[in-house]
Amino acid sequence: MEYRIEKDTIGDVKVPADKYWGAQTERSRNNFKIGEPGSMPIEIVHGFAYLKKAAAHTNAELGALEDEKKELISNVCDEILKGDLDDQFPLVIWQTGSGTQSNMNVNEVVANRAHVLQGNKLGEGERFIHPNDDVNKSQSSNDTFPTGMHIAAYKKIVEVTIPGVEKLRDTLRKKSDELMKVVKIGRTHLMDATPLTLGQEFSGYVSQLDHGLKALNNSLDHLSELALGGTAVGTGINTPEGYAELVAKKIAEFTGLPFRSAENKFEALAAHDALVETHGALKQLAVSLNKIANDIRLLASGPRAGIGEITIPANEPGSSIMPGKVNPTQPEALTMVCAQVMGNDVAVTVGGTQGHYELNVFKPVMAYNVLQSAQLIGDACVSFNDNCAVGIEPNESRINEHLNNSLMLVTALNTKIGYEKAAKIAKTAHENGTTLKEEAVNLGFLTEEQFEEWVRPEDMVGSLKK
Amino acid sequence: MEYRIEKDTIGDVKVPADKYWGAQTERSRNNFKIGEPGSMPIEIVHGFAYLKKAAAHTNAELGALEDEKKELISNVCDEILKGDLDDQFPLVIWQTGSGTQSNMNVNEVVANRAHVLQGNKLGEGERFIHPNDDVNKSQSSNDTFPTGMHIAAYKKIVEVTIPGVEKLRDTLRKKSDELMKVVKIGRTHLMDATPLTLGQEFSGYVSQLDHGLKALNNSLDHLSELALGGTAVGTGINTPEGYAELVAKKIAEFTGLPFRSAENKFEALAAHDALVETHGALKQLAVSLNKIANDIRLLASGPRAGIGEITIPANEPGSSIMPGKVNPTQPEALTMVCAQVMGNDVAVTVGGTQGHYELNVFKPVMAYNVLQSAQLIGDACVSFNDNCAVGIEPNESRINEHLNNSLMLVTALNTKIGYEKAAKIAKTAHENGTTLKEEAVNLGFLTEEQFEEWVRPEDMVGSLKK
Amino acid sequence: MEYRIEKDTIGDVKVPADKYWGAQTERSRNNFKIGEPGSMPIEIVHGFAYLKKAAAHTNAELGALEDEKKELISNVCDEILKGDLDDQFPLVIWQTGSGTQSNMNVNEVVANRAHVLQGNKLGEGERFIHPNDDVNKSQSSNDTFPTGMHIAAYKKIVEVTIPGVEKLRDTLRKKSDELMKVVKIGRTHLMDATPLTLGQEFSGYVSQLDHGLKALNNSLDHLSELALGGTAVGTGINTPEGYAELVAKKIAEFTGLPFRSAENKFEALAAHDALVETHGALKQLAVSLNKIANDIRLLASGPRAGIGEITIPANEPGSSIMPGKVNPTQPEALTMVCAQVMGNDVAVTVGGTQGHYELNVFKPVMAYNVLQSAQLIGDACVSFNDNCAVGIEPNESRINEHLNNSLMLVTALNTKIGYEKAAKIAKTAHENGTTLKEEAVNLGFLTEEQFEEWVRPEDMVGSLKK
Amino acid sequence: MEYRIEKDTIGDVKVPADKYWGAQTERSRNNFKIGEPGSMPIEIVHGFAYLKKAAAHTNAELGALEDEKKELISNVCDEILKGDLDDQFPLVIWQTGSGTQSNMNVNEVVANRAHVLQGNKLGEGERFIHPNDDVNKSQSSNDTFPTGMHIAAYKKIVEVTIPGVEKLRDTLRKKSDELMKVVKIGRTHLMDATPLTLGQEFSGYVSQLDHGLKALNNSLDHLSELALGGTAVGTGINTPEGYAELVAKKIAEFTGLPFRSAENKFEALAAHDALVETHGALKQLAVSLNKIANDIRLLASGPRAGIGEITIPANEPGSSIMPGKVNPTQPEALTMVCAQVMGNDVAVTVGGTQGHYELNVFKPVMAYNVLQSAQLIGDACVSFNDNCAVGIEPNESRINEHLNNSLMLVTALNTKIGYEKAAKIAKTAHENGTTLKEEAVNLGFLTEEQFEEWVRPEDMVGSLKK
Repeated sequence: MEYRIEKDTIGDVKVPADKYWGAQTERSRNNFKIGEPGSMPIEIVHGFAYLKKAAAHTNAELGALEDEKKELISNVCDEILKGDLDDQFPLVIWQTGSGTQSNMNVNEVVANRAHVLQGNKLGEGERFIHPNDDVNKSQSSNDTFPTGMHIAAYKKIVEVTIPGVEKLRDTLRKKSDELMKVVKIGRTHLMDATPLTLGQEFSGYVSQLDHGLKALNNSLDHLSELALGGTAVGTGINTPEGYAELVAKKIAEFTGLPFRSAENKFEALAAHDALVETHGALKQLAVSLNKIANDIRLLASGPRAGIGEITIPANEPGSSIMPGKVNPTQPEALTMVCAQVMGNDVAVTVGGTQGHYELNVFKPVMAYNVLQSAQLIGDACVSFNDNCAVGIEPNESRINEHLNNSLMLVTALNTKIGYEKAAKIAKTAHENGTTLKEEAVNLGFLTEEQFEEWVRPEDMVGSLKK
Repeated sequence: MEYRIEKDTIGDVKVPADKYWGAQTERSRNNFKIGEPGSMPIEIVHGFAYLKKAAAHTNAELGALEDEKKELISNVCDEILKGDLDDQFPLVIWQTGSGTQSNMNVNEVVANRAHVLQGNKLGEGERFIHPNDDVNKSQSSNDTFPTGMHIAAYKKIVEVTIPGVEKLRDTLRKKSDELMKVVKIGRTHLMDATPLTLGQEFSGYVSQLDHGLKALNNSLDHLSELALGGTAVGTGINTPEGYAELVAKKIAEFTGLPFRSAENKFEALAAHDALVETHGALKQLAVSLNKIANDIRLLASGPRAGIGEITIPANEPGSSIMPGKVNPTQPEALTMVCAQVMGNDVAVTVGGTQGHYELNVFKPVMAYNVLQSAQLIGDACVSFNDNCAVGIEPNESRINEHLNNSLMLVTALNTKIGYEKAAKIAKTAHENGTTLKEEAVNLGFLTEEQFEEWVRPEDMVGSLKK
Repeated sequence: MEYRIEKDTIGDVKVPADKYWGAQTERSRNNFKIGEPGSMPIEIVHGFAYLKKAAAHTNAELGALEDEKKELISNVCDEILKGDLDDQFPLVIWQTGSGTQSNMNVNEVVANRAHVLQGNKLGEGERFIHPNDDVNKSQSSNDTFPTGMHIAAYKKIVEVTIPGVEKLRDTLRKKSDELMKVVKIGRTHLMDATPLTLGQEFSGYVSQLDHGLKALNNSLDHLSELALGGTAVGTGINTPEGYAELVAKKIAEFTGLPFRSAENKFEALAAHDALVETHGALKQLAVSLNKIANDIRLLASGPRAGIGEITIPANEPGSSIMPGKVNPTQPEALTMVCAQVMGNDVAVTVGGTQGHYELNVFKPVMAYNVLQSAQLIGDACVSFNDNCAVGIEPNESRINEHLNNSLMLVTALNTKIGYEKAAKIAKTAHENGTTLKEEAVNLGFLTEEQFEEWVRPEDMVGSLKK
Repeated sequence: MEYRIEKDTIGDVKVPADKYWGAQTERSRNNFKIGEPGSMPIEIVHGFAYLKKAAAHTNAELGALEDEKKELISNVCDEILKGDLDDQFPLVIWQTGSGTQSNMNVNEVVANRAHVLQGNKLGEGERFIHPNDDVNKSQSSNDTFPTGMHIAAYKKIVEVTIPGVEKLRDTLRKKSDELMKVVKIGRTHLMDATPLTLGQEFSGYVSQLDHGLKALNNSLDHLSELALGGTAVGTGINTPEGYAELVAKKIAEFTGLPFRSAENKFEALAAHDALVETHGALKQLAVSLNKIANDIRLLASGPRAGIGEITIPANEPGSSIMPGKVNPTQPEALTMVCAQVMGNDVAVTVGGTQGHYELNVFKPVMAYNVLQSAQLIGDACVSFNDNCAVGIEPNESRINEHLNNSLMLVTALNTKIGYEKAAKIAKTAHENGTTLKEEAVNLGFLTEEQFEEWVRPEDMVGSLKK
């Protein structure tokens, strides 16, 4: 491979000749061979592109940067945002905890790419744009990285997570409406209980996801606060007057999202409770989705020796050894995602606790986990929706068989003959393997006509509005 | 010990003669010898007292219960709320996951105590009040236990957690204001960085707690939803028309808290995402408090071989072997609480995922962890506040020594001479053990006068409003 | 309340007149009002009693303590071990993270109780035994507390956890043997699969618990290492020659457990990876128990609309509203314990990461969680065993119904006619609601005689040894 | 893109013309668009190659497969193991929880690649090797996937994790030996304490890692058990006599690792406690490494306003804004890895709890997390070792300054003048900002000569062997 020499304040470094990155990126590549190369999420890099562009515009507008430099920086940022330079960001998550090296990676790529855009050859001649003095002007890694991760996380959540969850929620609501009159046995403690409708059962799932979406939306306010303008320690050293507010406004404009300058920059650098808060809401969604997916695979279990009250699409041969087997593969993928999100929550939490003084240096690991969870939940909801939820159908014969055999219909008699007599009917029928009606009459607690009037599953499900 | 015989639908049970509880409580005592007896939080029992009273009033108002029964039930509930019957609730957390046995414990105690209030002897004669048919009327364990735990958790949070956190937040804000002009060295990556003021540093803590309180308050909306009226599976079987809304209104009235009937009762029984959500916010507070407490003990470390920029109260002899030692004991207690809350969050999360069909049967473990975390955070904040935070004082000589030696003051020169020359000054001073000024002048980058004009810590801390 | 004055190196403190504790205990009581009073596990106090006694004996033997003092200290320790002084230890978990205050609580109680044993009045006259110079001789909180927690944890595990798990394991093994020939349908992905026997199914549980017990036993070696002799920072300052080894030997003798002196005392004070390791094994057991309990409640679900292949004892009325309902309450208690243990694992882990320099100051929270988990697992296994596992019975009619209807018996044909033809048979039977045999013959893939020879569930379960 | 048609028991599927995979792989690609494509760890695929080859050899040896087929399958497996076919495995982690689709991916690639190796064109003509009947012979996804993940995890641990940790442990031991006589101040509760040597401090780290390695090695026994031979549900249906033991022997031979057939196959399919156990040990190592890395960055903090007792290599410019700054980047990367591992532990734990009946369907998520943690710990230890630990040097002037000022040297006087007088000396010196000697003499407790004889830091560090 061919190399060129780049340098930084420590000295010279050999860099692959055809890459835009510079000395500090290369040092990081060599010093942090941990896990897969390039693991730093590209969404973070794109977040940087937004903020570097916004900073250039703001600096120019406030008289701290020449217009020509602004234009050049801005143009390279647009290239990054188009994805044209994705292969110029080779660093890993497991680097310095401030993300300084990824900030410098962006600074170096912008400076060198600008040099080339001006018609120069990479590595030759004096650069017009300096990575630190120009691209990084009025910035520090300590305020850019958290800004980049807020941008990345916010975008991921509104572009992937929320639409994915909403798609599934809407399908479940539609199913709930369609199935609102399908009366079936209820189950508590996994045991037969009083009836409800399949639509009511599904309405609970809808309500869970509605609450989860609300919680996730609540967390976005904290996430919309940007650290930019705090620079090194939160004081805003080396920024022009009015910079913080203006740069946030420009980021909001460029991203189309309601970002604003964090009121307290000391918190914004030293603590990432906003990520903790957001991931808490993602974890809550994982909890909800786990319940939903579990229920659906239990309800669909069988086909002959399970519950079997609903059917789900048969998308793949289920087994390499058992011919004809079909499995609830989508619920499985979804619940595995939930397990991952629960784990990620601990990683984010632990990272969040460990800020010291003016800086939290667990930024990359926190951002990585938030982005992974946000992506996985969104994707898994769409996958589960498209390949499973939309195709859920009731198995009415099975539903009716379970419903009509149920001993818990006896509950309707509590208000007529009292809990104790009702219990006696149920226990006797259970012991004898008979029906409630038989035993109710045998025991002399009520007549057949009364039984038929009082014990009607369809009257036991309450009102069906919503 | 003397016993009397109580019975339930399974048969006879010997119960301690002087206890109000009945057969089902006693069965549970015998069948669940797991951990300490009586571990079911008394707050849950008190939550039950509110709801049993409200149910009795509602049932009476809707014509489902005689007024005399209402009065009796209501009176016993008031006794429970006064704490007079706390020794009548011997059950453990680790019982049935629906909390049925604790619901029955309350039902039995109310019925038997009412019997005695009517002038009868415990265990003699026919009871006027039946545990199931009267005390439990229009209820199921499946809707009472979640209602009880929402009441308990909500009360704990508004009575203990929030006031405790606010007390600490207010003290930190006061300290922040007082110390706003104490310029000190900043530290990032634990390394010397550009200056800020001690008040700014503390303002970050205030902002963290403000955000945490906001998140906790956000979660209360979900927690204010009550399951009551859903009865067995969410359909509201065996409740009179209008019951759910009215009983929630009465609970709101009796507790003085904004409870309302859950819009979707199927979720309210089968999932406890509200607890997951609330505990997520408690965990966020733990994350914040961990950062704050860690900082304070680091800043107070020493007295001679640590950072030593602040002093905290010396409350106890610190060591059984090292005479004269004083330790940051309050930060230690607080961070231990934070570790517990982080663990509890996983217990709540795991419990939250495992609802099946119409019921989540991890209710007691979820409620226990939420209540423990809420109590510990509130208490630990007050303890930390009263015994540590209020007494924090700056150690100005130490602060100034650190500040004036700092090489990172060089950052102020970036905008004057560029990052690279500034770096050269800092590195040379570091290598030679000299001052920035000496090396800045030696290297010929600026004059002594320029240095003194440009490198002034007090000008490097930004604006001090807020 | 009446008080007497006690003093320490900070000054005078008012202490309840009738309590043996002194100034430092009282300071801690006042300074740490966090959660329930007295929450420091009594097992830790008893662990201290063993080590204080052993230290007194060792000091005496090595000429560092008069025999009369040794006797007095030893006698009070024996009283503590008998439980006679349990009400003299009012401190909470959430104190200083070194447990210094609990160490001093023990030192003070021993000194004052010894004073009284000598015939003096509490609080009057000069004490013969000094809390620091005598009771704490050759010790520091920093080595006593970890020693106390290792003693407490080790004892709990061998006295409660292991016997509890073994009891359940033995019952499951007995059930496995008894049920080894009960052929039933297997289920993978919750879906019908090829058959196995109920005894084989249970043998998996036995194997899980055997592996878990092995892992727990593996962890005991680390736990058997005692910090005592490290004193303040691990160097053993202020201990006589040979002290560390001898005191460990005496603790081993007094407890009857194989304790030994930690080879490296610096680790033993600054890190508590032994607790992390032990709790990791407890968590593994929780994982296993969760699987087992889940399976059993699923297999017992019904009675009419679930799986219903086994029955478990009906110990309590299951519902306050649904008469005659019986629920799997023991599996519920056990899985709630598992959730708690999973949470506790995170608390222990977080605590374990946070040692700094020569000391980890998350000792009490780590010890509390280890002890709670160890107790709960042991107790819950016994409860689950006695009230559920011993009474498990197969429901053979249900088992046979599920087995004979199963489409997955077709798997036996793979080696005869190939996977694809076998799949065709199964799918056709599924679509038509018919039997495998009918469709196998209809499709012309084999004769009725061949089907009957080849598709025999009892031949599909492999060898039944073990 | 060009396609060919492949089919499975569900029907036809269009597959990219140049890829070896078949219908089921393609279905999975389409049905599970969750996260990054190809996220299923390649190590799992390579584990499959070992086992498919071993199965072919075993089947042939036991007369169940023709030698020609054995040779073909074996040859393709060798290609996979060389990494030549890595781009043929496009599936994601988030698929069916049994990993059936990845098993089929391997089966299909082997069958189609064999077809081409025989001189045929992909997609044309009848295949000699059938994915299910030949490549998957005597196997099920249910026993192959756990076998593949055990092979992958075991190899990763012995090839990456253990060597990485050992490398760091050896460096720390060397440093401990070198620095064994550098007396320095100790710190407990972050506060000044009695002295120890830097070598002693480091010996604690060595001991932690030794214990962690022991725990990890303990876990390998469980991990060495292979599920293969259990096939669909653990009974070994459709395997020839003697298959399970022989195939395990061949895997052991091919991998050079001590694998053996799991004694209980029902556990081996339905529970993955072996992964839980192994990850528990990885988590323990993370806990240890977190302590070590934290200590090192604290000890190296400064350069002028921190502890500064050691120096670590300055590998990169530390700040994009603060010139000349150097940060502890390697400890940061390492502690971020620790946070991830702590999170992964919860994901593995949650997955481990959720087996049902004969199968755990959280296999891919569990395997992924174990492999990630094993890789990250190994890599991060090497990175930390090479770029930080090897270059640690004591800063003796700073060490001596801290040591000589320390008030805790007074502890040496406990055994001479008692704890209370010693405390008085320390407190007075602290208040007056004087030295211990001055106050000791002033207070009349001892002479200057006695002080100099008794208070010698070098005598306070115990014996220095190990």
